[in-house]
Amino acid sequence: MLTGMFGCAFAAWLFMKVAAIQLKRDGGDTSKTFKRMTGESTQETSSEDRIIEIYEMIREGARAFLKAEYQMCAIFLAVFSVLVGVLTARVGNGKYESQIGMTTAICFLVGGVTSMISGYLGMMVAVFSNARCTIAARHDGPAGWMASFNTAFRAGGVMGFSLTGMALLVLYFLINLYQNEFEITTTGGAIKLTECIAGYGLGGSTIALFGRVGGGIYTKAADVGADLAGKVVENIPEDDPRNPATIADNVGDNVGDVAGMGSDLFGSFAEASCAALVVGAHSPELVADPTMNGLLFPLVITALGIMVSAGTMFLATNVSPVMAEADIEKVLKVQLGVTTLLMTLVMRPAASAYLPAAFHIGPGKLGAPEILGGAGWDVTPNDAFQCVAAGLWAGCIIGFITEYYTSHSYGPTREVAQACETGAATNIIHGLALGYLSCIFPVFLISACVFVGFSRAGMYGVALAALGMLGTLATCLSIDVYGPICDNAGGIAEMAELEESVRDKTDALDAAGNTTAAIGKGFAIGSACLVSIALFGGFITRSGLEAHGFNVLKPIAFASLLVGAMIPYWFTAMTMKSVGIAAMEMVKEVKFQFATIPGLLEGTPGHAPPDHARCIKISTDASLREMVPPGVLVISTPILTGVIFGVEAVCGILTGAIVSAVQLAISQSNTGGAWDNAKKYVEKGCVKVEDSEGRRIVQGKGTELHKAAVCGDTVGDPLKDTSGPALNIVMKLQAIIALVFADFFMSVNDGKGYFNVHSAVLDQVARERAAAAAASARF
Amino acid sequence: MLTGMFGCAFAAWLFMKVAAIQLKRDGGDTSKTFKRMTGESTQETSSEDRIIEIYEMIREGARAFLKAEYQMCAIFLAVFSVLVGVLTARVGNGKYESQIGMTTAICFLVGGVTSMISGYLGMMVAVFSNARCTIAARHDGPAGWMASFNTAFRAGGVMGFSLTGMALLVLYFLINLYQNEFEITTTGGAIKLTECIAGYGLGGSTIALFGRVGGGIYTKAADVGADLAGKVVENIPEDDPRNPATIADNVGDNVGDVAGMGSDLFGSFAEASCAALVVGAHSPELVADPTMNGLLFPLVITALGIMVSAGTMFLATNVSPVMAEADIEKVLKVQLGVTTLLMTLVMRPAASAYLPAAFHIGPGKLGAPEILGGAGWDVTPNDAFQCVAAGLWAGCIIGFITEYYTSHSYGPTREVAQACETGAATNIIHGLALGYLSCIFPVFLISACVFVGFSRAGMYGVALAALGMLGTLATCLSIDVYGPICDNAGGIAEMAELEESVRDKTDALDAAGNTTAAIGKGFAIGSACLVSIALFGGFITRSGLEAHGFNVLKPIAFASLLVGAMIPYWFTAMTMKSVGIAAMEMVKEVKFQFATIPGLLEGTPGHAPPDHARCIKISTDASLREMVPPGVLVISTPILTGVIFGVEAVCGILTGAIVSAVQLAISQSNTGGAWDNAKKYVEKGCVKVEDSEGRRIVQGKGTELHKAAVCGDTVGDPLKDTSGPALNIVMKLQAIIALVFADFFMSVNDGKGYFNVHSAVLDQVARERAAAAAASARF
Repeated sequence: MLTGMFGCAFAAWLFMKVAAIQLKRDGGDTSKTFKRMTGESTQETSSEDRIIEIYEMIREGARAFLKAEYQMCAIFLAVFSVLVGVLTARVGNGKYESQIGMTTAICFLVGGVTSMISGYLGMMVAVFSNARCTIAARHDGPAGWMASFNTAFRAGGVMGFSLTGMALLVLYFLINLYQNEFEITTTGGAIKLTECIAGYGLGGSTIALFGRVGGGIYTKAADVGADLAGKVVENIPEDDPRNPATIADNVGDNVGDVAGMGSDLFGSFAEASCAALVVGAHSPELVADPTMNGLLFPLVITALGIMVSAGTMFLATNVSPVMAEADIEKVLKVQLGVTTLLMTLVMRPAASAYLPAAFHIGPGKLGAPEILGGAGWDVTPNDAFQCVAAGLWAGCIIGFITEYYTSHSYGPTREVAQACETGAATNIIHGLALGYLSCIFPVFLISACVFVGFSRAGMYGVALAALGMLGTLATCLSIDVYGPICDNAGGIAEMAELEESVRDKTDALDAAGNTTAAIGKGFAIGSACLVSIALFGGFITRSGLEAHGFNVLKPIAFASLLVGAMIPYWFTAMTMKSVGIAAMEMVKEVKFQFATIPGLLEGTPGHAPPDHARCIKISTDASLREMVPPGVLVISTPILTGVIFGVEAVCGILTGAIVSAVQLAISQSNTGGAWDNAKKYVEKGCVKVEDSEGRRIVQGKGTELHKAAVCGDTVGDPLKDTSGPALNIVMKLQAIIALVFADFFMSVNDGKGYFNVHSAVLDQVARERAAAAAASARF
Repeated sequence: MLTGMFGCAFAAWLFMKVAAIQLKRDGGDTSKTFKRMTGESTQETSSEDRIIEIYEMIREGARAFLKAEYQMCAIFLAVFSVLVGVLTARVGNGKYESQIGMTTAICFLVGGVTSMISGYLGMMVAVFSNARCTIAARHDGPAGWMASFNTAFRAGGVMGFSLTGMALLVLYFLINLYQNEFEITTTGGAIKLTECIAGYGLGGSTIALFGRVGGGIYTKAADVGADLAGKVVENIPEDDPRNPATIADNVGDNVGDVAGMGSDLFGSFAEASCAALVVGAHSPELVADPTMNGLLFPLVITALGIMVSAGTMFLATNVSPVMAEADIEKVLKVQLGVTTLLMTLVMRPAASAYLPAAFHIGPGKLGAPEILGGAGWDVTPNDAFQCVAAGLWAGCIIGFITEYYTSHSYGPTREVAQACETGAATNIIHGLALGYLSCIFPVFLISACVFVGFSRAGMYGVALAALGMLGTLATCLSIDVYGPICDNAGGIAEMAELEESVRDKTDALDAAGNTTAAIGKGFAIGSACLVSIALFGGFITRSGLEAHGFNVLKPIAFASLLVGAMIPYWFTAMTMKSVGIAAMEMVKEVKFQFATIPGLLEGTPGHAPPDHARCIKISTDASLREMVPPGVLVISTPILTGVIFGVEAVCGILTGAIVSAVQLAISQSNTGGAWDNAKKYVEKGCVKVEDSEGRRIVQGKGTELHKAAVCGDTVGDPLKDTSGPALNIVMKLQAIIALVFADFFMSVNDGKGYFNVHSAVLDQVARERAAAAAASARF
């Protein structure tokens, strides 16, 4: 048992170390330049002093935000863990099992803290690297491209590997810690243990919600606020050093896109693993294996993913490095493709090695087997491999489709850019249509995954598909974190008033970063959808409905289905309005500063600097304040529904929320990404318009056409960075809350809720449970 | 039996007559003025000549479009009816029943033709009244308000009553025609007949799809095109007489909002009635009644609705007429409230009079009764009344909520208007958030309706709730058609360059019209959702799945659920892009005309008139061409799914499409409505902005703020008038296609489709069917 897991853990550690060394060497490289500048660098240009100054302001701002956010999160964790402990301890009408409650609460706390640490770590690395990336971009020619790209990409790698490694280790540690207490080699013990471990996923996801929502509001309040302020006050370009909101904007990129994304994907991993463990624990063959290899197969997928991703890292940074602008997207795509391919190759033998030759998943003892695929599923390692492979390839293809729709190398985004010719309105119309259109293939792929996973191995298969999609997580995260680092690097270059060529380089890196961010979001959404379905399956299994299925043709079911599908809209509306409100506060502050700080607007030499700290404080306060209502909505909906209307209503809410959120999330992310890149395409001077004499004139920065493009970008900001990605968490969090509190819901009127909603099925489940309890008491 | 129905029919005819007389009197009034102007009116002002000229151009344009559209529809009907006839005749593996096929195909044709007639009728009335409304608005003071409002409102009434009356009569006629052929007093006969009658709904809905999509593309291509052309070419105001696209714009209002809306609601009525009939035919008590009163109760609801609505018409036009601008919205709201109240009062005795004291709905003979609410539902007249009342009041409240979100008398729209202060981007962000937010309560209400209807009387109850919501259809349609007439009247006033006061009046009428249009859309969406669920219930009943329910926790089910929820996005993307393409063609044509017609742009006295006909042709051609792909998507999805993947996949597609489309439709309609009225609010000079000295300055027409508001309006146009309302039909049409082709789907591998997708439930259904067939053969 230990061999496999220790191998994984060792690999995780090893590759974290490798990544860390790379950074040190990297940091060494740049920090040499860096030290030269900081310490005794009187002979250096003042622009490099400026870089460090900006770098430090960003670091302080990021730290201040995380500190404030984590204080809130800590309080929330403390309070909510008590609730989790008490509620999950209630296993029947008036019956309590304190061990279950305690363990769940502890796992919940550990998950929350791990999520916080991974968010903090990623963000610090990102903040640490942005200035280094700017400096690296000052080199000329291919070397400059390579240095700046590698810096950003490796920093991403540190985040990717440390997060996945840590997540895996902690989970493994938890399982080992409790395995004796719960007698993991008995089915009952394994079920109980895995159900408690689900608290780990809940903890991770709860923090992820606050990270995503809070971070999303922070970053977009600052971004939209900075854009609008420049527009309202005077025609100040984005990232102009005089604009006091720019530092907050740069902090925001780290807060939202790095820390938020990290927590989000950590949550996905934790939840997918928990879902697979919960469903797997119902399989007698998997549990019976004393080495625990079979049961822990879900963790093996992730462990292999870490090793493969680590191997392919060298491909991008050393074997075929970025030498010119055209290489960037190509390298990132090859990276993703190769990782997926290698993962597919290693997964087949791994499945044979770790899984028993045949095992059973699904209901057996409870009867009524026709509902869920005969008498459950007889699964072979090959079936399991197919599920994982389906997830792997679906993720990869979704990534490429997302790239097709959001990169300005392809038709769709160029069309959106061209639509700016007739103004902002047509830009918006085309962008929205693009977002809707971009749902088609990803949704087909996701549903193909669901079909393959489900028909091979039931909900276990869906969970494996989700883990497969997350198999390339380390690579994806590296690609993903790369984006905001480049964005920041560009911002620093602009603020430090560096040469045009640096800015051009960081812009090109950033444009690729927008696309990769969209790819990352595609992955995050796809895996979130699969994870949610798997968790839903865990919930069904745990509440005893598995043998009966969830029939939507019931009054409470269809009604809750409609309401569930509405929740993502409600959530989106809340977060969008929050961004609007916070951005307005920011605009007012900027106006106030321009009005009160003498010489700032005019740029008189020697004028007082803008007060960045106040802007950072506004973003921080607003995001912490505004993240509460959406958080309450998402957390309370499944709990209240379960308590008041019962388990079947929860099923409806979950189903509705999943099918609705996945579409909204994809369309919002891609619309926003396309607008952003359409703007970049216009700025590159690639859009031409016919004038009255039929000549085609380039319309670049500063033209009416560019203004229309900027309008689209501003609208897209809250969509792609606040509400869109947060919708992942809406699905996942609701599903894991349902899973963790399943027994509690079942304890209220046999799962019929406070209103005791009529349900023949739940009456039947209650009879079955009573019979099972009586039978076990007899022995 | 005849008493009740003839009473209804008579009432329908009578009130159509009343409405027609009113129009004649009205027409008399204005046509006096009118004749004075047309014939020998050399002493009249030239502006009145101009009105008539414009009026005639609009009429010709509308007629030309409908002619072209109906030619296409006729061909489609002919071809598709053969398909319907052949496919529905196939009742088992290789078994055909030609009578069923024939009857369904005939009902389909009748439904299609009725829908076309009602669209044509409504449009001709609307076109007939717009100029009269303009003329009426030339009167000063309260009399002018009253005359212009009443003209528009009565014209709406003509549409409302003729459509509902005709729909009811034709349906009644069809039932009577076939009642002997099918032995309606036996359960088997009643089931067969009602299933054939469902073809009527299918016909109506198919034409409605083309009407809505084609009309929607037409109207918005013209509208957006006209707006953009003015912007691109020169700063020409909307509806400027020099702009050659304005006539097409005005034609479009009639084509899309009147003919399209009419067909849509006709379809809803026809389908809701068919759903209620199909489910009702499975109740032995309802069928056994020789007077057919019980079976035809669904028609009684509509009949009473016509009479009540007719009574309340006098309220608005005579008892408390519109005297000033502030009255308009109030009068329209009172109208709706009073109709709902009266309907509630008359429905309770009607239910007792027509329904048997107790009857049974739902599965009984097929066993496994625990799945669908015990052994079905034992329904009393009071239960039926509760279902209808739930629908009635939910509709009314949804109407008011919609008004709250879209009228500029309330906070939400004013907030959107104020958000224009910081530019188009914040306007769009706030508008989108408003749309998402406005889903919350309507969805709660709809799901409450589903819950009440379903728990009282199963799918019969849901169908009754839908009919209840459509009970005030005549009033709603009147209110609804009123809007585009006012819009047109305003357009005519502008083009004829009438006095400012006329334009002010028509603008105020039109602003109320935007709100009422949103109310109408709220109704249309709510009822479409209920209708779709009821049709889905009919499909389930017909395919024998009723006793087993639809369990989403199956591979094919969840996969198709996700795909189904994506269809509305795909559809929206298609229609939005179509509008974009058609609008661009229009812009090019306008630019071309300004460049080639000398003196047009400069407005030189005596310049050649713009070529309106070419613009009309562009809109017509574009809309006919562009409506085909979305139409194919919607029609082919359920058919192909059913044939290839089987019945359970169809269930998934329907469920997904319903839950997703209802949210999208509500948010799109309300977002668009709010943007339109926010623009009007800005134009009224109600939005103030603080200048640098802290003074609050009005920002009206022509300012940057107004431009931002116009941008929102343009984005909203395709959302609120093309894709949003067409989504209703996406839900309904898919559901009724499933219902009509249910037996055909079941004939392909026992409903498991060409791929023979594994399904224990469908195997069980096949065994039950075989047993039932064997049992009936034995007797």
